[in-house]
Amino acid sequence: MPGVSLTPERKLEIARELDATGVHVIEAGSACTSEGEREGIRRVANAGLDATVTSFARGVQADIDHALDCDVDGVNLVVPASDRHVETKVGSTREDVLTNVEELIAYAKDHGLWVELLGEDGSRADRSYLHRMAETGHDAGADRFCYCDTVGAASPERTLEIVSGLADLGPTGVHTHDDLGFGMANVHAGLRAGADFVHATVNGVGERAGNVALEEVAIALDRCYDVETVELERLYRLARLVSEATGVSLPPNKAVCGANAFAHESGIHTDGTLKDGAMYEPYPPEVVGRERRLVLGKHAGRAGVAAALSEHDVDVDEDELSAIVEHVKDLGDRGKRVTDADLLAIADDVQERDRDRQVELLDLTASSGSGLPTASVRLRVGGEERVASGHGSGPVDAAVTAVREALADENVEFELDSYHVDAITGGTDAVVTVVVELSRGDRTVTVEAAEADITRASVIAMVDALDRLCGDVLESGTEPAPADD
Amino acid sequence: MPGVSLTPERKLEIARELDATGVHVIEAGSACTSEGEREGIRRVANAGLDATVTSFARGVQADIDHALDCDVDGVNLVVPASDRHVETKVGSTREDVLTNVEELIAYAKDHGLWVELLGEDGSRADRSYLHRMAETGHDAGADRFCYCDTVGAASPERTLEIVSGLADLGPTGVHTHDDLGFGMANVHAGLRAGADFVHATVNGVGERAGNVALEEVAIALDRCYDVETVELERLYRLARLVSEATGVSLPPNKAVCGANAFAHESGIHTDGTLKDGAMYEPYPPEVVGRERRLVLGKHAGRAGVAAALSEHDVDVDEDELSAIVEHVKDLGDRGKRVTDADLLAIADDVQERDRDRQVELLDLTASSGSGLPTASVRLRVGGEERVASGHGSGPVDAAVTAVREALADENVEFELDSYHVDAITGGTDAVVTVVVELSRGDRTVTVEAAEADITRASVIAMVDALDRLCGDVLESGTEPAPADD
Repeated sequence: MPGVSLTPERKLEIARELDATGVHVIEAGSACTSEGEREGIRRVANAGLDATVTSFARGVQADIDHALDCDVDGVNLVVPASDRHVETKVGSTREDVLTNVEELIAYAKDHGLWVELLGEDGSRADRSYLHRMAETGHDAGADRFCYCDTVGAASPERTLEIVSGLADLGPTGVHTHDDLGFGMANVHAGLRAGADFVHATVNGVGERAGNVALEEVAIALDRCYDVETVELERLYRLARLVSEATGVSLPPNKAVCGANAFAHESGIHTDGTLKDGAMYEPYPPEVVGRERRLVLGKHAGRAGVAAALSEHDVDVDEDELSAIVEHVKDLGDRGKRVTDADLLAIADDVQERDRDRQVELLDLTASSGSGLPTASVRLRVGGEERVASGHGSGPVDAAVTAVREALADENVEFELDSYHVDAITGGTDAVVTVVVELSRGDRTVTVEAAEADITRASVIAMVDALDRLCGDVLESGTEPAPADD
Repeated sequence: MPGVSLTPERKLEIARELDATGVHVIEAGSACTSEGEREGIRRVANAGLDATVTSFARGVQADIDHALDCDVDGVNLVVPASDRHVETKVGSTREDVLTNVEELIAYAKDHGLWVELLGEDGSRADRSYLHRMAETGHDAGADRFCYCDTVGAASPERTLEIVSGLADLGPTGVHTHDDLGFGMANVHAGLRAGADFVHATVNGVGERAGNVALEEVAIALDRCYDVETVELERLYRLARLVSEATGVSLPPNKAVCGANAFAHESGIHTDGTLKDGAMYEPYPPEVVGRERRLVLGKHAGRAGVAAALSEHDVDVDEDELSAIVEHVKDLGDRGKRVTDADLLAIADDVQERDRDRQVELLDLTASSGSGLPTASVRLRVGGEERVASGHGSGPVDAAVTAVREALADENVEFELDSYHVDAITGGTDAVVTVVVELSRGDRTVTVEAAEADITRASVIAMVDALDRLCGDVLESGTEPAPADD
């Protein structure tokens, strides 16, 4: 994937997780790329994994030598298949490519390698030539031939037609890309046509629009065809690891692994889901190691709001519930994501509970730059003012340290479960959206704040969350005694 | 999509763009949701668009009345089709649902509405019952019936089988979700089976893993089947508008609209693309209103690096190019994205050019909190020190203002083309990655900086970019005279 680069340590970490998930073959990289890349491949190859570990290799002997130098089990040998690639890119001829294929496969097999031959740009190749290439490969001893839709240009019809012919010749794989959105449709067509091997990447990372996503192939084969591939319940963990390692965040609406894949907001969806989990889910989230999530917003209905209130131990009657639902929708109409803090503030308002804030931000100063990032806060906690300072790795970190310090004497234990800032684009004066999740015991509160100043937004969100989460303790001045059971 | 909420103004803006793109029917919202939602639908309905404007409506007369109240042209009438939805969710019976369908369609048609009947959860419904529902709809005067894979659970085989039967009865649409990654495969199967209408969303936003993406359906039908749907060259503009309005960023590896959809990094890809644009692209980026992009990294090859250097007017010989390529790969091996500034620094190094920095950050102080965000910088510009202060909407904005102020007397014109901060997850001490793009005339420089302190990272990136972009002017002290042509 353009712009993504993994260190050898990261490669090994991901390879171990792929192996634990049950992936059969791991292409650990392209040994010809650089010494750092070889170091990464070598570590994966020597990690004692169950999976077959391979390197990508172009159709030159030096690439196979580089691969051998990395101790891999096999190579994915890529040679040009379409005339555009044979002639314009490599400056060769169809016949010379086939001669080369014979020699290189013989060389690789002599050195004990598992060999997969890939006909690059196969989807745009002359069909009879691709057929000859596969035959040549099988005859020379390749373990399999892979049909490559390198540029993601093929229709499912074309894939079905070409792969049907290839699968008659020997073990066949499919390598598809998603440029037309047909990545999965072409995997489906290829398997229908007799292929038994799929090239996929975690989260669909890869050149351009990416390769087909491993997690989608695995879940679709399991749910629709009862075909087992990998350990499904490890898919989410794997997806998060790769997202973190590559710095490519998981889109919320990504199948299997996106934040919304098992989230429900709209009234009829939440209502139905509360009656029967399967109502709006194709399979239970636990299958892929996840949990269901209900979200409030303008489409919220009574059932969803009631469920959210009860999570925070707020009792309401029917009329109050109606009024709260109206307010939640109203907030949604104004384009806002509705957090726990918003919901609780609305409930206070509707129930005419004149709730005193227990934690309030009175003053904040944060500075950073060439020196040590430093911040001070003045908070009102219960009836008293607390002032504290702190330092940290940046102004936000310093300010959060100061807030913790200001509460150090109070008897509250809380955890910052997550701190998230939406990507900022536009100018340096763009509004920054910060979402903070704090927990105390088994209760969690999520708060969002949006300000042009990231430090202020972060502290406001944190203080609001603390107020909601620890307000009861701070009011009484003591942590409630544990229930006697 | 859970958590996404659009104001009436945003709804109208998106609807106008959908209309200009040539979308045939716009479901503008769900009129029963809230008064704000109705206001948005009303504005879209009364905007004089060419598209048919509809509202979603559940199987109750009140929802149709709400829709009529919004002046829409039609309704998407949704009734339960699977037993799970008929019995558990709505608490009704198959027969009662059909009676209801007859009455509601008659009511809607009496009021002059275009009516699409949707059988919710149709993919998990009894096939003969779904068949009866479609017949009932057509007999009652519905303009079309839509097969809904509401939970994204169907295989392409099942879609093909069910839709084949439905399409014999009258005009049929398909509504698919991507939970198993089969969103597009099922659209494909549905159209093959005789459907002639597709429900799609821009960028594939929608419940859970999302609906099928409009841009993918449009490009696939155009490229593989010569079927025209919408104005393809407006797709990218539309995608960006929806991304901005929803706050859901476009994944880099998203087909058609992702940042990488036409980007090339790896050596063989860049080399091939420079020889022939079609080498690694299924269609030219201009088709969807975009441009090609080359990216450097550890897979970089000679051709890509040479092309990037020539963009910055740096001449190198063959040996120097080899050395630069090695350094670029090395930087990539260490997990770094290679920016223009990195490339130019490497070239300086390889060519043993003892380049003096023309702009250097000596000191930075930024403070924010309860008061006005303020910052000061001390820069070395050419041989002299410049000190300046500024204020802004936050510490980063204030610091950038101070940098601009420090350079105010120099004769340099530059634009901050883009300022981007990757989403931050983890703790408040997470490293923040800032990417700044500055331009002067037709030259552009991109610089990335990563620091735990967002303010420092932003200023470092900006100063490095200025140094690269304006160094020549600052050295000579005057803007070069325009070339005489």
